[in-house]
Amino acid sequence: MTDQLVNKFENAKAIFQAGLQAVAPGPAIKNLCSVTDETLTVDGLHYDLRQFDKIFVLGAGKAGASMAKAIEDILGERISAGIITVKYGHLEELQKIRIQEAGHPVPDQNGFEGAQAVYKLAKSADESTLIICLLSGGGSALIPLPVNGVTLEDKQETTKIMLACGATIHEINAIRKHLSAIKGGGLARAAFPATLITLILSDVVGDDLDSIASGPSVPDSMTYNDCKTIITKYSLEDKIPSSVLKHIEEGAAGNVPETPKADQNFFTKTQNVIVGSNFNALLKAKEKADELGYNTLLLSSMIEGETRDIAANHMAIAREIMLTGYPLSQPACVLSGGETTVRIQGTGKGGRNQEFVLAAALKMSDIKDVVVLSAGTDGSDGPTDAAGAIADETTLQRARSAGLDSQNYLDNNDSYHFFDKLGDLYKTGPTNTNVMDLRIILVG
Amino acid sequence: MTDQLVNKFENAKAIFQAGLQAVAPGPAIKNLCSVTDETLTVDGLHYDLRQFDKIFVLGAGKAGASMAKAIEDILGERISAGIITVKYGHLEELQKIRIQEAGHPVPDQNGFEGAQAVYKLAKSADESTLIICLLSGGGSALIPLPVNGVTLEDKQETTKIMLACGATIHEINAIRKHLSAIKGGGLARAAFPATLITLILSDVVGDDLDSIASGPSVPDSMTYNDCKTIITKYSLEDKIPSSVLKHIEEGAAGNVPETPKADQNFFTKTQNVIVGSNFNALLKAKEKADELGYNTLLLSSMIEGETRDIAANHMAIAREIMLTGYPLSQPACVLSGGETTVRIQGTGKGGRNQEFVLAAALKMSDIKDVVVLSAGTDGSDGPTDAAGAIADETTLQRARSAGLDSQNYLDNNDSYHFFDKLGDLYKTGPTNTNVMDLRIILVG
Repeated sequence: MTDQLVNKFENAKAIFQAGLQAVAPGPAIKNLCSVTDETLTVDGLHYDLRQFDKIFVLGAGKAGASMAKAIEDILGERISAGIITVKYGHLEELQKIRIQEAGHPVPDQNGFEGAQAVYKLAKSADESTLIICLLSGGGSALIPLPVNGVTLEDKQETTKIMLACGATIHEINAIRKHLSAIKGGGLARAAFPATLITLILSDVVGDDLDSIASGPSVPDSMTYNDCKTIITKYSLEDKIPSSVLKHIEEGAAGNVPETPKADQNFFTKTQNVIVGSNFNALLKAKEKADELGYNTLLLSSMIEGETRDIAANHMAIAREIMLTGYPLSQPACVLSGGETTVRIQGTGKGGRNQEFVLAAALKMSDIKDVVVLSAGTDGSDGPTDAAGAIADETTLQRARSAGLDSQNYLDNNDSYHFFDKLGDLYKTGPTNTNVMDLRIILVG
Repeated sequence: MTDQLVNKFENAKAIFQAGLQAVAPGPAIKNLCSVTDETLTVDGLHYDLRQFDKIFVLGAGKAGASMAKAIEDILGERISAGIITVKYGHLEELQKIRIQEAGHPVPDQNGFEGAQAVYKLAKSADESTLIICLLSGGGSALIPLPVNGVTLEDKQETTKIMLACGATIHEINAIRKHLSAIKGGGLARAAFPATLITLILSDVVGDDLDSIASGPSVPDSMTYNDCKTIITKYSLEDKIPSSVLKHIEEGAAGNVPETPKADQNFFTKTQNVIVGSNFNALLKAKEKADELGYNTLLLSSMIEGETRDIAANHMAIAREIMLTGYPLSQPACVLSGGETTVRIQGTGKGGRNQEFVLAAALKMSDIKDVVVLSAGTDGSDGPTDAAGAIADETTLQRARSAGLDSQNYLDNNDSYHFFDKLGDLYKTGPTNTNVMDLRIILVG
C-alpha cells in the first residue's frame, strides 16, 4: 500500500477513535456529573447530598464496570453499597461496588442471582436513599428477574417463540416487560420512595428510553390486555408456556399489579440521563474530520436496514461527491451511525460492519480516492474478534491479486476471512462502551 | 387538511415540478444546442454546416417525440429525413421526422420495422451526412434489430432465460448487444463515415452511456468470448435458442464481426451528449427548494436498492434533522434521485415511488412537520396512472380514520389503493421525459 493510502486509512481510524473517546463511559459520565461537599450535579440537576444517608449504585450492561468505575471516582467513600451485572470478562477494579459476571446474550443463573441482588438492594432503599442506576447495552439479558410463577426458562422460551412467529420487537418487549420484576419500570417501583438517577449509555437507535435495557426506570405504556391481544394475534395460546399464559391472564383479570404507568408516583423522583449515544460519538467524529480538513456530513445516527442496501446507499453518495461535488465537495467525509442487519445467505464468518465494508468495496470500481471504515463501538462485530473493517478503491484489485473472489465472499457472508486475508480487519479490542456502529466514508 | 399542510404539499410539488422542467426535452436540448446560418453548436462543439449536404435525425425512446420536436425547432428545413421510434401514444406533430409507434417494454413487429428503418437510414449516410441520434429511456426495447439468423422471439426468449437464471444486468446486456445490429455501438458502425451526434436523456443510474438504450453509439467492451463464458457460467447451452448459441459460437470462432470496440474508427466522428439527467433535475429542484427558504441537501442522484430500506434510510435522516439539526437545520429539504426496486410480496397495485412514500409514512409516527413526495419523472409509477404519492405526519392518522390498516397495505404492495383512498396520489399525466425518480423530504 502507498504512503498516501496508509494516511487515509489512518485518517479514517483517527476519526473513529475520536468518536469512541466521546462515549468512553468514564469521561462521558464525568462530563455530566460532578460533586462538591454537599451537592451532586447530574446534567444540570442539583441533589443536596445532606438529605441522603445512603447512596446505592446498581445496574447492568456491557459497559457496567467502566460506568461503575467512573461513579466510584466521583462519589468514592460516599457509596454505601452497590451491585452491577456485566458480561463475563468485562471487569474493572472497584472498591465499593460488587461486580456480578453473567451470561449474554443468553441469560444464565449468574444473571438471575445478580438481578435478585439488584432488586433486593433497590427494595431496601428508603426516602433518604439515593440510588444511581447504570444501564448500557446488554442490560436486558444481564438482569433477568421473572415474575413469581414464571421461570427463567419459561421467559426464554416465550421470547424464542415470539421471535419465530414474526412478532415485532415492540410486541416482544411488551410481553417481556410483563414477565419481569425489573423491566418496564419495575426497578423504579422497587426503588420508590428513594431518589433514582439513571445514567444510560444508549445502544438503541433513536435512544428510546423505553427500549434501552427494557426500560427499568421508565413507565411502561403497554398493559396486560395489550399482551393478551398480541397472544391472540399470533395464536400463541397453545405455544407459550402455560405459566406465562396464566400470568398474563391473571394480569388482564386485575389479579396481578400492572407494570408501572406514567401517572404513578414511582416516577416523581427519577431522573434519566443519556450519558453517551451514537450521536455523541458522531459529533466528535465530525469534529475530528473537520480538523483533518474534510468537508463533513453527519448523515444520521439512526441508520437501520439491510446492510448491502445501506452500503449501496452510502456509495451512491460517495459517487455523487466524486462526480458533481454534491452534497459535499472534496475532500469529503460522510459519517453515519446506527445498526444494520445482515441477511444470512451463506456459511461464512463476519459481522454487519465487515459486510458493510465488503459490500461498499464492490461498489467502488469506478470511484477514485475513497476509503470506507465501519466498526462497532463495542469493539466486536458479530461473532468475530474484529470491530469492523476498512477498504478503499484498491481493495478489489488487491483481493484479485491474492486470488480472492470478492463477490463470492460477500455472497457467503464471509467478510471476516476476506478482510483477514487482506490484512484490513479493524481490531480495537474491547472498548468498554457500546453505542452501536460508526461508518466513515472519505472521498478525495 | 389544514392550510399549512396544503402549503407544504404545494411546496413539495413545486420542487418536483421545477426538477421536471429542467429535464423537459425541448428546453434541455435548446439549452445545449444552437444554430446560426453556418454553424451548429452542441455542448460547446461547433459543426460547420456547409460541409454537410444531408442531415438525418433518428433514434428511439419514450421521450423521442418531444426530443424530435426540439430538433425540428432548431434545424427545421435543414433536416433531410428522419425516423424515430416511440412508445404507443407518445406523439408530437412533426414536419420532417417520421414517428414510428412501437411496443414497450415488450418489443413488437412495429419496433422491428422502426429499427429496420433507423438502421437503413444510418447505412445510407456518407461522409457529408450529419446524423443526429436521439436516445431516451425505453430505447432498447423500441428498436430491436436482431443479427442475421436470430429472430426477435429468440432474442426475447434469451433475455427471459437470463433474467431467470440470476445473471446480472451487465451480463444480460453483453449477450443482448452481441445479438443486435444496433446496440453496443452497432449504430455508430452503420453510420460511419457520417458525423454522428447523439443526444441522450438518461434514465440510467450513473448516466452510463454503455447502458442507456444499450449504447448504440458507444463502443462495447465485451466480446463473443465473454458471452461464451457467461453462457457456460449459468449452464445455458441447452436452454437458450440454438440460433443464439450458434451465433455466439460463430462469433467466438471469428466468423462473425465483433461488436465495435473503442479503438475502431467508428468512434472518431461521434459526440455523445447527455442533455438531461436525474442530477440535472435534482439541481433545479434544489434551486427551487432554496428559493422557498429551505436548507437543502442534494443527497445523491444514484440511489438504488430495496424501496423500504431506502425509505427507512431517508426517514433516519429526517429524524436526525428533527432531533439534532444534523445534517441540516430546519426548515430542511432532502433531495435524492435514482430508482429503487420493490420486493413483491403481496398482490396489490403500486409502484416504487408510492411504496417508498407509504414505507416512509410508517416511519413518521414520532417525526413532526414532515412531508415526503416521491414520483417518477415520466409521470407513471409502475403499472399505475399516478407518478407517485405524497404523505406527511397526518397520513397514518387519516388512514386510521378512514379504516385503512397502513401496514397491511404496505405488506400487500398495495400503495396505489392506499393513497387513492386518501386522495394523496400524485398525478402529473405523461411528461414526455424520463430521468427516473425524484424524492423530496421536507422537515419543519
